[in-house]
Amino acid sequence: MQPTKRTKVKREPARGIYDKGNIYSILDDHFLCHIGFVHDDHPVVIPTLYGRYKDKLYIHGATTSRLLKSLQEGTKISLAVTHVDGLVLARSAFHHSMNYRSVVLFGIAELVTDLGEKLIGLKAVSDQIISYRWEEVRPPNQKELKATTVLSIPINEASAKVRTGPPVDDKEDYKLDVWAGVVPVQMSSKQPVPDPLLKDGVSLSRSVLEYHEMSKRG
Amino acid sequence: MQPTKRTKVKREPARGIYDKGNIYSILDDHFLCHIGFVHDDHPVVIPTLYGRYKDKLYIHGATTSRLLKSLQEGTKISLAVTHVDGLVLARSAFHHSMNYRSVVLFGIAELVTDLGEKLIGLKAVSDQIISYRWEEVRPPNQKELKATTVLSIPINEASAKVRTGPPVDDKEDYKLDVWAGVVPVQMSSKQPVPDPLLKDGVSLSRSVLEYHEMSKRG
Repeated sequence: MQPTKRTKVKREPARGIYDKGNIYSILDDHFLCHIGFVHDDHPVVIPTLYGRYKDKLYIHGATTSRLLKSLQEGTKISLAVTHVDGLVLARSAFHHSMNYRSVVLFGIAELVTDLGEKLIGLKAVSDQIISYRWEEVRPPNQKELKATTVLSIPINEASAKVRTGPPVDDKEDYKLDVWAGVVPVQMSSKQPVPDPLLKDGVSLSRSVLEYHEMSKRG
Repeated sequence: MQPTKRTKVKREPARGIYDKGNIYSILDDHFLCHIGFVHDDHPVVIPTLYGRYKDKLYIHGATTSRLLKSLQEGTKISLAVTHVDGLVLARSAFHHSMNYRSVVLFGIAELVTDLGEKLIGLKAVSDQIISYRWEEVRPPNQKELKATTVLSIPINEASAKVRTGPPVDDKEDYKLDVWAGVVPVQMSSKQPVPDPLLKDGVSLSRSVLEYHEMSKRG
């Protein structure tokens, strides 16, 4: 992807990444983004779920949602996805840092009106959170589809920023008796909690078992 | 805190929370926020670290940072902090949800020029990520303080939104043979990785031991 004036990484330019493969892989590894837009002359940042399918991100919400209503009017948006991968603990306060992977994207959201694409978008959001769940559950009916707005955001102006590795300290600080290194962090899952109203005899499904198996440890 | 036109939760109003105690507790439980502002007539969302001290949030960065430069000019901002606490898996695709705690805040950032407050702000950011680390490391020197910009953001226009509990399905779906419930998720830490250049004989410090002990399991 060609960096634009907006997406070119200025701070720590060596951390800037512009290739589609890396950008998509960072996007695919999360399901929560923060969307910024201007409403009544004021910036607003809202967390929301998303899914990627091919070269678009999809977001969804109630047709009555203020966010969704604002965005389908051709509003310019910025969207960020951030993974915290580790606390980078240096010997000096100044050189403390974070290992992270982030993507910042600029664009305009479009209302998805085609029913086929609407289902693709909703499945993309579901798949992004937990694979194979879509296949296990009751699909959306007419009424539910009508009550849901799906927007697509083309991924064509985006950049990623990544930091990895140990702290980098001032030369003279390496002799200090201060522990330095990285504490890796990640999202992990705890034991699934069944709905108190779960029908007798229904056991954990494939999607949940696989998700928990994958995310319960690093 | 009095809800304003901007902070009043419109979607799922029952999830809206306006009291300071709850808002501060959600803010104190994270260290990464997403800040939105308008730059060259376009919204920009950037992830950054923050710390709370009393009724202000502090953010910091290099004096050369575009974000910090833009924000100290009295630019209006919106700031969001989001915890994902659980995947809410319903029997229908439509009723899938997230358990979460989020805060959205509006305001204007101010440049911190007083040296005492600057140190308070930097310590707040450090404490927020990992308690007691500030006391273990070499404090910032004159040159480092000069190279760092600290901004404060008053917390006086904010609201929180929280969802907890099991999925809520349509009445007729409760008879379906679909596992439903919540998969709790959280940030957790893995074994700390010492800097390859760590001085011989330096063992894990109190801050890291306590952090890891607290966050390695739920």
